[in-house]
Amino acid sequence: MKKVLYPDRSTWNNLLKRPTQTVADIEGIVENIFNEVQIEGDTVIKKYTAQFDKVELDSLLVTDVEIDKANNTVSDALKQAINLAKSNIEKFHEAQKTSKVEVETLPGVECWQEKRPIQKVGLYIPGGTAPLFSTILMLAIPAKLAGCKEIILCTPPDKNGKINPAILYTAQLCGVTQIFKVGGIQAIAGMTFGTESIPKVYKIFGPGNQYVTVAKQLATKYGVAIDMPAGPSELLVAADDTANAAFVASDLLSQAEHGVDSQVILVSTSEKLIQAIEEEIENQIQMLSREEIARKSIGNSKLILVKDDQEALELINEYGPEHFIVCVENEAYYLKNIQNAGSVFIGNYTPESAGDYASGTNHTLPTNGYAKQYSGVNLDSFMKSMTFQKISEKGIQGIGTAIELMAEAEGLQAHKNAVTLRLNSLKK
Amino acid sequence: MKKVLYPDRSTWNNLLKRPTQTVADIEGIVENIFNEVQIEGDTVIKKYTAQFDKVELDSLLVTDVEIDKANNTVSDALKQAINLAKSNIEKFHEAQKTSKVEVETLPGVECWQEKRPIQKVGLYIPGGTAPLFSTILMLAIPAKLAGCKEIILCTPPDKNGKINPAILYTAQLCGVTQIFKVGGIQAIAGMTFGTESIPKVYKIFGPGNQYVTVAKQLATKYGVAIDMPAGPSELLVAADDTANAAFVASDLLSQAEHGVDSQVILVSTSEKLIQAIEEEIENQIQMLSREEIARKSIGNSKLILVKDDQEALELINEYGPEHFIVCVENEAYYLKNIQNAGSVFIGNYTPESAGDYASGTNHTLPTNGYAKQYSGVNLDSFMKSMTFQKISEKGIQGIGTAIELMAEAEGLQAHKNAVTLRLNSLKK
Repeated sequence: MKKVLYPDRSTWNNLLKRPTQTVADIEGIVENIFNEVQIEGDTVIKKYTAQFDKVELDSLLVTDVEIDKANNTVSDALKQAINLAKSNIEKFHEAQKTSKVEVETLPGVECWQEKRPIQKVGLYIPGGTAPLFSTILMLAIPAKLAGCKEIILCTPPDKNGKINPAILYTAQLCGVTQIFKVGGIQAIAGMTFGTESIPKVYKIFGPGNQYVTVAKQLATKYGVAIDMPAGPSELLVAADDTANAAFVASDLLSQAEHGVDSQVILVSTSEKLIQAIEEEIENQIQMLSREEIARKSIGNSKLILVKDDQEALELINEYGPEHFIVCVENEAYYLKNIQNAGSVFIGNYTPESAGDYASGTNHTLPTNGYAKQYSGVNLDSFMKSMTFQKISEKGIQGIGTAIELMAEAEGLQAHKNAVTLRLNSLKK
Repeated sequence: MKKVLYPDRSTWNNLLKRPTQTVADIEGIVENIFNEVQIEGDTVIKKYTAQFDKVELDSLLVTDVEIDKANNTVSDALKQAINLAKSNIEKFHEAQKTSKVEVETLPGVECWQEKRPIQKVGLYIPGGTAPLFSTILMLAIPAKLAGCKEIILCTPPDKNGKINPAILYTAQLCGVTQIFKVGGIQAIAGMTFGTESIPKVYKIFGPGNQYVTVAKQLATKYGVAIDMPAGPSELLVAADDTANAAFVASDLLSQAEHGVDSQVILVSTSEKLIQAIEEEIENQIQMLSREEIARKSIGNSKLILVKDDQEALELINEYGPEHFIVCVENEAYYLKNIQNAGSVFIGNYTPESAGDYASGTNHTLPTNGYAKQYSGVNLDSFMKSMTFQKISEKGIQGIGTAIELMAEAEGLQAHKNAVTLRLNSLKK
């Protein structure tokens, strides 16, 4: 762990730098697979599934029989936990519904804004060591609440052509319409172009490794939207002497176990607390099953001592953390002035894990400093807002002259003419 | 104009195809200028301003003296028109403010969502034949309402190093904080990296030619967000015998005058109306100052006869027009079922020009079919939503076990441990 005491502002830029990912060499691979999938569809997807996932599939679509079987496999205790999380996530995202915004800007000029669902969305859930069924909760629940018609899900099969039962259970529970056994670049390409079995979608959501990230970026060139740009997960904790060192250490470690490139930062006004947290980390890290990963990312982590709350906040806003835990006496000051963060966890009894799984907030959040300009996934991520206007004869008489003058000043005569014709027809 | 009678559904894809833009050769030029601006800042920006805009500038920043002079130059009539438009746009965007969404998902588990402004935004306004001061209204007004701290604007100078007075007047009226005389690729690069005079921003808004479009795409690779992907402007009109043929023709022409690549489509259930509109277009087009441009894009336009309202809507939703005018008897049916459109204009007295300038809705809208998944610019485009959660001792006791079970099932032991430690501390 790197301890940095009272760093000078001129060094912040360097101090807060994220590890840079080089993607140039991946891009070629991704483009090739996209080109093949666009032309050959399912055939080439099956070829890559055989190559990367080591299984030959006859059909990509998960059947009802497989889903039923999964339902019988997941333990009742885990089902209950998933159902509790689902209920909380539903409550919080349901509350985000907005009603029609309606304004008569001038007499006879009615304007309104309505949100309508994105008709077809695709969710990507990675495979690998951890079956991320929690991410299905975070994406399928708001998609369903928004009213998306087609909610498809792609996830890679294991060597036996199977999907983890918790993934299948959660997907059907949350209203996913079709599940496909496809992973990686070929999954993103399939949802971008559509194949014989996989429908083309309008927006793709979900996490993934570097290949999936580059594939999602490439998808945007073909007219598909994505949830947000991705980067390694990060946590910044602001804590003072009111914080519990053991709790803070456990939170830092929970972030560190994600991967060796995970970002972990502690900002504190208390040198004593920093010391205590360092010791607690050493105690706890030895007991972790993913100790090796955690040690690597903790090795790159930073414990930063600052002079006061104001400086702490300036530094935090400069960084823009994905997850931000606040355990300080002057809590209100931090909450009021935090400008750039994905999700904020407040007090000693609010670990990041709570938001990762079950509090109700979404865990798909902007990393890599994107909290400065991107929202985390929320209900609106699955909708788009449309505007409407209806102008009466009186209304066009009220704003017609202004439009004519402005159109003329911009040199757009036909724009002006569309109004003039209407105004003239009313001069009788 | 291409008249298409009762096209078979199998031909829709081809019929609705937009002109493809090839950008590959532009990308190299854009990348080079980005690299130079990143290293050399203002010096290289001035070099490109000399090369492209034919003027040597000492300073890029517009001075207060220049702004005062512009204020004295713009006519009172135009000022009044701009002020009227501003008032309507303000009313409509002010009404889009949302309050904090707050939910106690379980006893002791408080979650809330708040929107906070993007601190630094950049607006790009093209130069050229038409001074698009209306676009400043559409971007700076919501930026100001959202509470963005820095609102900078870049627009190219003319050969004499001047900016159109209507642009300067509108920018200062709407609260733009700094105006720079920089256009094209170098403007986008300047806002992406920051230079000695131009601040780095978090999100870039505004229209532009192919070079600007590609530059905005490249900016996203450097961590800057953009309003939306861009394409040529488009209008689709759905009209039946209740529509006024002359009005519809004037609307189609107002879209056609934008550029030779503008998209104009009429969908109707009435062959008689199509005939009448064709004649009206011929009458009106001869009187336009931009007749040549309008003739070219009208030449590519399509008048499509369909069998009924349902088929019309299916075709329109498949296309997803940027602007959608509805002049039909069965208006309610169209409004209810339109899923994909940027902005909708209803009835005989609601020309597209009204929304372009003064009704109150925003004219920065998704083109190129992006209405399927993107919103037009609105108040939220200048904010990001953040989530917060605060869990009490009772709260963590309520959801702790569920989190432990889920974390374990995902193989994330440290995530589980962060909860277990807290639960144990409360077992006394």
